Amino acid sequence: MKRGFGSDNHSGIHPKILRAIEKVNESHAVAYGDDGYTARVLQTFKMHFGEKAEGFFVFNGTGANILALKAMAQPFHAVVCAETAHINVDECGAPERFLGCKLLTVNTKDGKLTPELILPKLHGFGDQHHAQPTVISISQSTELGTLYQPEEIAALAQLAHHHNMYLHVDGSRFVNAAAALNLSFKELSADLGVDALSFGGTKNGLMMGEAVILFRPELAENFKYHRKQAAQLYSKMRFVSAQFEAFLENDLWKEIAGNANKMAQLLAQKLKTVNAVKIVQKVEANAVFAVIDPELKKQLLNDYFFYDWDENRNEVRWMCSWDTTEADIIHFVETIKIFLR
Amino acid sequence: MKRGFGSDNHSGIHPKILRAIEKVNESHAVAYGDDGYTARVLQTFKMHFGEKAEGFFVFNGTGANILALKAMAQPFHAVVCAETAHINVDECGAPERFLGCKLLTVNTKDGKLTPELILPKLHGFGDQHHAQPTVISISQSTELGTLYQPEEIAALAQLAHHHNMYLHVDGSRFVNAAAALNLSFKELSADLGVDALSFGGTKNGLMMGEAVILFRPELAENFKYHRKQAAQLYSKMRFVSAQFEAFLENDLWKEIAGNANKMAQLLAQKLKTVNAVKIVQKVEANAVFAVIDPELKKQLLNDYFFYDWDENRNEVRWMCSWDTTEADIIHFVETIKIFLR
Amino acid sequence: MKRGFGSDNHSGIHPKILRAIEKVNESHAVAYGDDGYTARVLQTFKMHFGEKAEGFFVFNGTGANILALKAMAQPFHAVVCAETAHINVDECGAPERFLGCKLLTVNTKDGKLTPELILPKLHGFGDQHHAQPTVISISQSTELGTLYQPEEIAALAQLAHHHNMYLHVDGSRFVNAAAALNLSFKELSADLGVDALSFGGTKNGLMMGEAVILFRPELAENFKYHRKQAAQLYSKMRFVSAQFEAFLENDLWKEIAGNANKMAQLLAQKLKTVNAVKIVQKVEANAVFAVIDPELKKQLLNDYFFYDWDENRNEVRWMCSWDTTEADIIHFVETIKIFLR
Amino acid sequence: MKRGFGSDNHSGIHPKILRAIEKVNESHAVAYGDDGYTARVLQTFKMHFGEKAEGFFVFNGTGANILALKAMAQPFHAVVCAETAHINVDECGAPERFLGCKLLTVNTKDGKLTPELILPKLHGFGDQHHAQPTVISISQSTELGTLYQPEEIAALAQLAHHHNMYLHVDGSRFVNAAAALNLSFKELSADLGVDALSFGGTKNGLMMGEAVILFRPELAENFKYHRKQAAQLYSKMRFVSAQFEAFLENDLWKEIAGNANKMAQLLAQKLKTVNAVKIVQKVEANAVFAVIDPELKKQLLNDYFFYDWDENRNEVRWMCSWDTTEADIIHFVETIKIFLR
Repeated sequence: MKRGFGSDNHSGIHPKILRAIEKVNESHAVAYGDDGYTARVLQTFKMHFGEKAEGFFVFNGTGANILALKAMAQPFHAVVCAETAHINVDECGAPERFLGCKLLTVNTKDGKLTPELILPKLHGFGDQHHAQPTVISISQSTELGTLYQPEEIAALAQLAHHHNMYLHVDGSRFVNAAAALNLSFKELSADLGVDALSFGGTKNGLMMGEAVILFRPELAENFKYHRKQAAQLYSKMRFVSAQFEAFLENDLWKEIAGNANKMAQLLAQKLKTVNAVKIVQKVEANAVFAVIDPELKKQLLNDYFFYDWDENRNEVRWMCSWDTTEADIIHFVETIKIFLR
Repeated sequence: MKRGFGSDNHSGIHPKILRAIEKVNESHAVAYGDDGYTARVLQTFKMHFGEKAEGFFVFNGTGANILALKAMAQPFHAVVCAETAHINVDECGAPERFLGCKLLTVNTKDGKLTPELILPKLHGFGDQHHAQPTVISISQSTELGTLYQPEEIAALAQLAHHHNMYLHVDGSRFVNAAAALNLSFKELSADLGVDALSFGGTKNGLMMGEAVILFRPELAENFKYHRKQAAQLYSKMRFVSAQFEAFLENDLWKEIAGNANKMAQLLAQKLKTVNAVKIVQKVEANAVFAVIDPELKKQLLNDYFFYDWDENRNEVRWMCSWDTTEADIIHFVETIKIFLR
Repeated sequence: MKRGFGSDNHSGIHPKILRAIEKVNESHAVAYGDDGYTARVLQTFKMHFGEKAEGFFVFNGTGANILALKAMAQPFHAVVCAETAHINVDECGAPERFLGCKLLTVNTKDGKLTPELILPKLHGFGDQHHAQPTVISISQSTELGTLYQPEEIAALAQLAHHHNMYLHVDGSRFVNAAAALNLSFKELSADLGVDALSFGGTKNGLMMGEAVILFRPELAENFKYHRKQAAQLYSKMRFVSAQFEAFLENDLWKEIAGNANKMAQLLAQKLKTVNAVKIVQKVEANAVFAVIDPELKKQLLNDYFFYDWDENRNEVRWMCSWDTTEADIIHFVETIKIFLR
Repeated sequence: MKRGFGSDNHSGIHPKILRAIEKVNESHAVAYGDDGYTARVLQTFKMHFGEKAEGFFVFNGTGANILALKAMAQPFHAVVCAETAHINVDECGAPERFLGCKLLTVNTKDGKLTPELILPKLHGFGDQHHAQPTVISISQSTELGTLYQPEEIAALAQLAHHHNMYLHVDGSRFVNAAAALNLSFKELSADLGVDALSFGGTKNGLMMGEAVILFRPELAENFKYHRKQAAQLYSKMRFVSAQFEAFLENDLWKEIAGNANKMAQLLAQKLKTVNAVKIVQKVEANAVFAVIDPELKKQLLNDYFFYDWDENRNEVRWMCSWDTTEADIIHFVETIKIFLR
């Protein structure tokens, strides 16, 4: 298949992570997480996220999100999120289905929630007729490639806790944010008051695997049952654990996410002077959103794979990945320039 | 970790299957199954299961079961199964949770349903007060290591269809059955009237991955939405597809399942003359169920890992796997004999 | 308790309807709807709604809505509705809980959906990542006291059917609309392409009881099971049936709803010249929405019961009921005028 | 319709209870339970059930059961009940649907659970693969017309609490039990360790209405939200409250239930010497279960309405009601004797 900028999950397995799978493929290990590999990496999580952090592996991003939310929400609760949130747009209603909860969606310009945007949704507390707002869910980095600054997250956590609510972070690209902001995982989660994190691996070089990180012991109490009942308990779990171990070892995650971010910056920079391409969101992580000439788009799609974001506005999304190269970028921009000549 | 007979998911990845993962780890592929690898292997499924068979990959056995059942059952329906069925005992209530359905459980001696055992559950049709029986679900091979003969499955399919019901087969060890009975997949499913099959890979040498095979087009119609909403849609799907391709290529599955079955036979045969061990179920697939002396059990657990099946009866379960060797069996039996001396 | 304009369910049972309950309180009747009274009134429904209309009694408005929607929607579907819809705001998330569906909410000025407002929500058809839009749900009369004209409903039905979707009407105040528009039930539902109707009784003089009217036979097929499973099957059903029979007999509903509508008109008219009260929605059914001076509100609440609609905007809601009298209105307006002097 | 012994919900409204409805049908009352009538009767409940008892009205028996259970159980929990329990047999799977829970059913001879019968279900605690047993649910009186003695309930409560489980009583006929045992409500619930009770009214002379009584404050905490989300919140609640007030006033319940019980005793006694009728369960409340000659049954059904219990065994159920008279019994027995001559 042709290379492209379709999604960061179009790339394959990072060689070091594949090597880790191969390495633990030896003899027998107890299934469902009761193996030594898993115990070890969950301990490593505590080093990265703080002592109180409890980690649980799940299969995919949707699984991580619905289970992280389930740890905090009962069916009569409501989850406040951006209208563009993955949990709202891209999970086929899995949150409503699994949680029984209402999503209270908020219109944003850049995929980012603010206290001002959220406040109008925070009413009806104690009124039996209204789904009770209980979780604020944000994505870091956002679905629009933008980033929350640490103090912005802290402000949302404060707002949430002030209303006896929780703050959830959909971090399918959490490492892209951590790399871009040059912060440790703990500095970007526990230290800011985050209560639960969907910690993504698949979009950053794993074959498969995400983790739910819970920062309050009471949230973790029944997690294992919810996970099993959600059909998200991995059987030969050592093979997920090994991937995450490699991901964290010697800050491989930073190299991986850092490359994806850097390539997005490079792409944005090289397109700055191209009039037929208008970049419409801040490029802060590994995505570039641009409005482009429809003829140019058609031409580009002959050689590269990428998605429309909003066909009506001629807006497209270009995602960079751990395996995106400078040559990819240069060649892509060249193709654009040749077309425009 | 010490080797043992704990479960067929304690073993690792078969080398040929790991090789297949490595081989497709090249450049980019569209996610969520829209890649060429997946298209190819789903076509191969049709060769194995018949032209009408539609295959869908999911993460794990529980995911396969609840989604196969969801294709057939609405919340007011009921699923008839053996009391020992995995869907009843080992899935933490996931079927009730995801389907909203009642399980009508039947007591059996050997894990096998028969028309006679099922009939008393088939009443209340049309009565709004009663959950409507809609699916008969069997396991092949069963959780007790026994097998349905083809004609027994055909009889159950006939019973089901006579009542406008469906027949589902939980085949997390379907290949063990096919190998033992020396039948093709089609001969053991479509040809007998099976409507839906959970087709297992993980317990037979895959790293992870199961498939749902639906034998009626109307059952497949909305499957993709149910799968996504159940958080069972794999992102980098080529890596599951590749495993299944290797699994089917040159009948690797037969080699894998055949070895596990053969080792169980060997173990059973060698224990036949050992008085302290009483084998309590027919050994027809890759499991040996035995009542053993508690002191012997204690001693064995020092060297080998395996599970109690029923502590009150001193019944244990020994599972053989694709990687169980004759040496494993011989050494295990030796350990027993030494203890008994 | 003091009288007021709190809600049309603050009033009691219309005397003729209470009489009907008393009249059927004789000897024995089979439970759960298999009685002659129920058969008779369901037949009467066909006279009012058309031969294809199938009626089912349920307990309350939320029950009617979730069951009407369940007849049309699977969990991976989405329901488009106004942000102010009762199903979105006032049912504590019951639709998400019972259906597993996503609600796609639309901002409106007057509680009314239009094709233009709906169209941006109608995308992603066939895409497994997105909840599939399947139902358009409107309220007639709306939660803001406004009315859809017949041709407006017809246009929405056409839009829905063009996309293989259904049109649902939350008609907890359907008779208010029918009385105001001087249309028969059929002219205001079946003839316009409505597929399912929640037909309200409680807010128009019944003690309790609503009906779901389904206009396509396939929607009614499994309704009885859904109703039972939703715990909405009334045991001594003759007592609901009798109420509805009286409600329909000699167009009692028209007298009831007509009075409520007329009183709202009267109230609106008498307040037209009062500067401290600004009516902010068209008064088309039995509700008056007004922005009023906060001091005036405080004073009024001493004597009358009514609710804030939007405290930030000083907006209140005054509902009229079957038992609201001209004296009520005159006295209420007098109280306002006295205060303003 | 002909009178009969079909069910205690085939009878109508007791005159005193109908009178109570009429009496509160005056002017306005706030909806959804925020009215004075409701406050008063909930206070009365505390007199009958103890100070800690919190009462909540719901529509019907299924609603009461699923909400009482929801107060105690999360989806990964399991509820132990008799195979004949109403929640297992007669609610179309509503408990599985609403709770997401597994029911662990126990075979009994007389509809009664015992610690011995329950114990084999109490295992797998802490194991993520198994639904966690959390509630024991019994019916008092049982679906087979039998009664638990107080000490039997106390023993079940002790067993439950010993395993950190709860004891639920499905008391759709609780007053029949209390009348038969000559115990106060508190003596038959709170004093024995019952944690939650579905307290029935409909089968004992109410038009409609049941209550959930919760005996631990923590169980009541979120009940109002669950009730609303389950569509079980009554709008004009004063009309349910009034019925319950009349039901409790001057021990009307005892007169009502007492009559039904007495008539069942009379019927049983008069049939003792009739060979063609074999009574097969102890007659302790208001039901008589009998195996009768099929020809006799056919003949009787010409004049009386009643249900088969088990057609294969020629077993029928005769229910007595608040309005069953001695004349009814005498005439019924006469009809039998005439046929047998």
